[in-house]
Amino acid sequence: MSGSVYGTLFTIATWGESHGDGIGVVVDGCPAGLLLDEAYIQTYLDRRKPGQTKYSTPRKEEDKVVILSGVFEGRTTGTPISLTVYNENQRSGDYSKIASYYRPGHADYTFDQKYGFRDYRGGGRSSGRETIGRVAAGAIACAILQELGVQVKAYTRSIGPITIDPANLKLENISRSALCMPDLEASERAETYLLEQMTEHNSAGGIIECLVTGMPAGIGEPVFDKLDASLAKAIMSIGAVKGVEIGDGFHSATVTGAENNDPFYFDEKNGVTKTSNHAGGILGGISDGSDLILRAAIKPTPSIFRPQNTVNQDQENLEIQIHGRHDPIIVPRAVVVVEAMVAITLVDQLFVGMTSQLSKIKDFYHR
Amino acid sequence: MSGSVYGTLFTIATWGESHGDGIGVVVDGCPAGLLLDEAYIQTYLDRRKPGQTKYSTPRKEEDKVVILSGVFEGRTTGTPISLTVYNENQRSGDYSKIASYYRPGHADYTFDQKYGFRDYRGGGRSSGRETIGRVAAGAIACAILQELGVQVKAYTRSIGPITIDPANLKLENISRSALCMPDLEASERAETYLLEQMTEHNSAGGIIECLVTGMPAGIGEPVFDKLDASLAKAIMSIGAVKGVEIGDGFHSATVTGAENNDPFYFDEKNGVTKTSNHAGGILGGISDGSDLILRAAIKPTPSIFRPQNTVNQDQENLEIQIHGRHDPIIVPRAVVVVEAMVAITLVDQLFVGMTSQLSKIKDFYHR
Amino acid sequence: MSGSVYGTLFTIATWGESHGDGIGVVVDGCPAGLLLDEAYIQTYLDRRKPGQTKYSTPRKEEDKVVILSGVFEGRTTGTPISLTVYNENQRSGDYSKIASYYRPGHADYTFDQKYGFRDYRGGGRSSGRETIGRVAAGAIACAILQELGVQVKAYTRSIGPITIDPANLKLENISRSALCMPDLEASERAETYLLEQMTEHNSAGGIIECLVTGMPAGIGEPVFDKLDASLAKAIMSIGAVKGVEIGDGFHSATVTGAENNDPFYFDEKNGVTKTSNHAGGILGGISDGSDLILRAAIKPTPSIFRPQNTVNQDQENLEIQIHGRHDPIIVPRAVVVVEAMVAITLVDQLFVGMTSQLSKIKDFYHR
Amino acid sequence: MSGSVYGTLFTIATWGESHGDGIGVVVDGCPAGLLLDEAYIQTYLDRRKPGQTKYSTPRKEEDKVVILSGVFEGRTTGTPISLTVYNENQRSGDYSKIASYYRPGHADYTFDQKYGFRDYRGGGRSSGRETIGRVAAGAIACAILQELGVQVKAYTRSIGPITIDPANLKLENISRSALCMPDLEASERAETYLLEQMTEHNSAGGIIECLVTGMPAGIGEPVFDKLDASLAKAIMSIGAVKGVEIGDGFHSATVTGAENNDPFYFDEKNGVTKTSNHAGGILGGISDGSDLILRAAIKPTPSIFRPQNTVNQDQENLEIQIHGRHDPIIVPRAVVVVEAMVAITLVDQLFVGMTSQLSKIKDFYHR
Repeated sequence: MSGSVYGTLFTIATWGESHGDGIGVVVDGCPAGLLLDEAYIQTYLDRRKPGQTKYSTPRKEEDKVVILSGVFEGRTTGTPISLTVYNENQRSGDYSKIASYYRPGHADYTFDQKYGFRDYRGGGRSSGRETIGRVAAGAIACAILQELGVQVKAYTRSIGPITIDPANLKLENISRSALCMPDLEASERAETYLLEQMTEHNSAGGIIECLVTGMPAGIGEPVFDKLDASLAKAIMSIGAVKGVEIGDGFHSATVTGAENNDPFYFDEKNGVTKTSNHAGGILGGISDGSDLILRAAIKPTPSIFRPQNTVNQDQENLEIQIHGRHDPIIVPRAVVVVEAMVAITLVDQLFVGMTSQLSKIKDFYHR
Repeated sequence: MSGSVYGTLFTIATWGESHGDGIGVVVDGCPAGLLLDEAYIQTYLDRRKPGQTKYSTPRKEEDKVVILSGVFEGRTTGTPISLTVYNENQRSGDYSKIASYYRPGHADYTFDQKYGFRDYRGGGRSSGRETIGRVAAGAIACAILQELGVQVKAYTRSIGPITIDPANLKLENISRSALCMPDLEASERAETYLLEQMTEHNSAGGIIECLVTGMPAGIGEPVFDKLDASLAKAIMSIGAVKGVEIGDGFHSATVTGAENNDPFYFDEKNGVTKTSNHAGGILGGISDGSDLILRAAIKPTPSIFRPQNTVNQDQENLEIQIHGRHDPIIVPRAVVVVEAMVAITLVDQLFVGMTSQLSKIKDFYHR
Repeated sequence: MSGSVYGTLFTIATWGESHGDGIGVVVDGCPAGLLLDEAYIQTYLDRRKPGQTKYSTPRKEEDKVVILSGVFEGRTTGTPISLTVYNENQRSGDYSKIASYYRPGHADYTFDQKYGFRDYRGGGRSSGRETIGRVAAGAIACAILQELGVQVKAYTRSIGPITIDPANLKLENISRSALCMPDLEASERAETYLLEQMTEHNSAGGIIECLVTGMPAGIGEPVFDKLDASLAKAIMSIGAVKGVEIGDGFHSATVTGAENNDPFYFDEKNGVTKTSNHAGGILGGISDGSDLILRAAIKPTPSIFRPQNTVNQDQENLEIQIHGRHDPIIVPRAVVVVEAMVAITLVDQLFVGMTSQLSKIKDFYHR
Repeated sequence: MSGSVYGTLFTIATWGESHGDGIGVVVDGCPAGLLLDEAYIQTYLDRRKPGQTKYSTPRKEEDKVVILSGVFEGRTTGTPISLTVYNENQRSGDYSKIASYYRPGHADYTFDQKYGFRDYRGGGRSSGRETIGRVAAGAIACAILQELGVQVKAYTRSIGPITIDPANLKLENISRSALCMPDLEASERAETYLLEQMTEHNSAGGIIECLVTGMPAGIGEPVFDKLDASLAKAIMSIGAVKGVEIGDGFHSATVTGAENNDPFYFDEKNGVTKTSNHAGGILGGISDGSDLILRAAIKPTPSIFRPQNTVNQDQENLEIQIHGRHDPIIVPRAVVVVEAMVAITLVDQLFVGMTSQLSKIKDFYHR
């Protein structure tokens, strides 16, 4: 694979640059019979759209999606679904200055090293707009999961040094917080922190947490395609992510086995469950029927409005000043991207997981 | 893929259960002309062999590797290299008691949920012995990297609450520490901590850090097959890993852009470098020519010699007591596994990365 | 993979239905630096466009391609190239009658069996229009091959019972023949034959031959990804193809080893060559430096304007009469599709083949 | 992939050279619960074993298979199944002469071009012994198909110019014919023909036909992973195959649509069937519920005991005389290899095909 294709049975191929003619995705392997229309996918894209709060770039990007194939009479046909968002707000002039030098924290330098040259307008392929294809495909994946009783819900866990208090976590507050934080008190403090950074022409990062409920036990492949390994790749492939953890994650490295082990327990109502969930719903790379819990560390936006030292294509040292319209934080807009990548990965693994037992395959084929 | 095959061009397929007849790996896509023999591969396997310190299981496993194909007159031929380690110490009697119940923190329950039944002897396929195939293949990957000027070096960064002091980090101390810690003072404290846990029939986890030097810039595919995303999957696919981070990782989520951005700098001697390396050598999913730095969080060994609550296959709640010989910590033995998975991933990405520029392909084919 | 994605390093994902909003392809893995514009790709699409002779459907389909990504300042950037042809001539009314029954020789029945329902307009995804994406991607592959000194040339070898005389084969005649036959005398007889079939509301098939010159020796992977095996899949994946052969193909099964073996020969001017080419340029699945020769058997167009017996979705037997505008033969329009699939496959194998020798990899990375 | 790994969900990785220490295969993705032992797999390997008739090499190769993993208490566990055949009859001395020159019709030259050097003993990886891994994996695939009601049966259709009379075809005669021909009268004539070739130190080729019964309709992916495309690759990947056809194959290119179309027909007893089967059971790349029929053209054995012209590694022209023990025809021994490759491909496509319809996925997961 060459980087822009993802998945084994539920496969997505994304394309598009920030300032090209459009951005999109081809979803191959969506089963036939799913109700699907553009309005539904749009609800997901609108969640990553900029300009909705003062904490995101004031750029106006409508990002209207069109379905070009794979849907007939309101339902998916099983053939590839082509989704396109045409770019409409390409002010390339904003970016001409960055053509020759390498912005710190961005992929300008590495793209030039890899490809010899690059589409420098707005970051080109390395722009955050690349995630449009992921989110559109993720909307489809979420619709499939919904049919299978699985829900994926991500939210902002922390912004810079401000972290939610788990005791105050209310999922219904996510949409009430400008920062997608399910703890409104923390959200308020985080807004204050962010405004400080913006005043100082600085930027912030944070942590996104994702919760998956309704996941059946037994999903994930042992060894290399473990469920958590696949999720780690999915999440780390999102632009600014620098770390991924499952369940107690890095904290689990500091405790003892007696503290970290989750006892199994059976009762008639819930069947086999665990009395704690340090594992985050995955054991040996396979889902255990508990909620999946994972976290992604997002670095601060590298575009800051301060003088910075760097080099240019002619290998000259220089001081630059980035202009344009940039997010002081990308965490809130990345929440739906995390949901999308998790959902796409879960659908793929649920599909691959259908062939684990001969008896179930025989039942499927009525033999 | 069905879980035990990994890689695009440099592909490995591992097989084997803890108490089956053997464990091994088929390496497909190793280029022709690499000097290779069993003695070299054995040096890697010996690093994961148990019984070398009091902090690992006293089980005696010689784990002698044989090369069955793909090497002729001392060099690789370009065809698949089949490596086998025959199991010799299968005391299946030790494990018969665990056939019916699900050990907390292990994959017993999830394997049964996925496959309907399992080879319960010693954890079967979910045993740590599964990593033998990874390490053997990793030795080959490291030999290829060596030819390309790339070195991969992992070590123990922390054990439970004890972390190395970066100021004291000396790579040459790794082999002097029973725990593979490059800070001997921290290593001593960690040994004390571990002995306490062992006395209390408890276990510990820790963090492994991996450093890659000599990596050329421009390696990694944008979007889904980012270098860091591929490494995250590789590392998270190792049994007990619960978190992965690159560069400053989770810490970067707490700082500002001004603190986190790495300025580029040019001088004649070193060319373009960065004056700091918060990014851990990867920008936009592509190597930037700096050292790669990544960390893996390893959970404490789930096998502890205390009474634990769990359920059995008949859905009865019961208290169990695990017997047998188990590692009180797996971190030191997992160090070489991390190296192996990183090396395998880097080789694959270096190979895939050869087709990024048309002019280089033309040069390759002398056109 | 789920069927519409093809290739390992040079990967294409096609999408689109006959009467949907458009048809297209995403090409991932095209190296950076290739000169590319829409006019060039259009020349390939125009070769498969209908309505150019009386032997193809009189439907008017302009099939204008647009490039939506992956090209900047006239050159490819290494990122995915999205190509779209918007459908403009969807007279869905023509097809409403076929919604309920299964046309013999078409995929109506099998799509319903697989997916439960189908986009019945114009064959939906199983329409010959699906090949637009292949041809557009093939144009890019041909441009890459051109840079590497490789030419792919296909032509009609036979129509029904009329076969070209190899003694009369002149490649420059291909474009002079309404049927893409490089033997104009045979072409004339084939036209007569075709007109007879058209008068009788019948259709014809034929054989397409493809010649590849300039192919370097040593390309192709032993065992499963043999060059001929990959080409066989590529060719057989084209809608109406029922057979594929390399070199002497089925004829070689009837002769002796002494007749079929190609002696090697060396002279200063040409280096090592073969004094005959029964093998069609491939030995052991790897190119031998001779011309590649392969043939595809194309079945007669299943849409014939005669009463035919079939069943409908309600499992009723009935007699149907197909209406609409259909090709009496698809062979001439499929010539460029064969070229496209061969070119795409060769590019992928040329790319994969760059990692066969360690010494060449070291040279590539300047170590 | 690098050539020796095959399949999406049912994946096999083969390894081994003719005169190395062994030959084998790792089967990943076999579902749990299949009854499997070595004796069953051996019955398939014994069918390709040489020395059983005077028409195969008198080399003695026992080719005893051992199962090293993936089977527990007589059933597959869902984990990789490692199968090894240790080589026992490596008379490397026989082959030392061929180290320096390139045998016509063999892969000696192309391997050297690709890899720079080769294991020349007995053809190394390009030996017919490479198929041992395919046949062992094919035995497992056939066992799975048996559970799903699908039978794969191949036989010799022609030897040189001698073809079976379909009117005399009796499948029960296959095992009675020394050449696996289901028409004993044709088999007798073919034996006479072969003895003539052997007397003249020559060799012969032939055609293998494969019949699949019980295949459900709806299997195969449209576009690139068509069932016939996948089968074509599978068959063409077998060493000496130079052509593949489905149903009427190349003959269909010579007839009209009225002759080639298969009418559908419904009756209560058989449901929807076709009243003829020119299509060979596949329409639009998807199985139609009829028998699958395909044919493979096998070239004559290139090893003939006559003087032949060729070149050596020093680019000198020379006349060679091959010695050793070689099959005068490989068709009968390749019959089981064709069955194996067809079975492996069908299992993979049956598994991939389980995710075509959302409603069936919901049923599978009981939602």
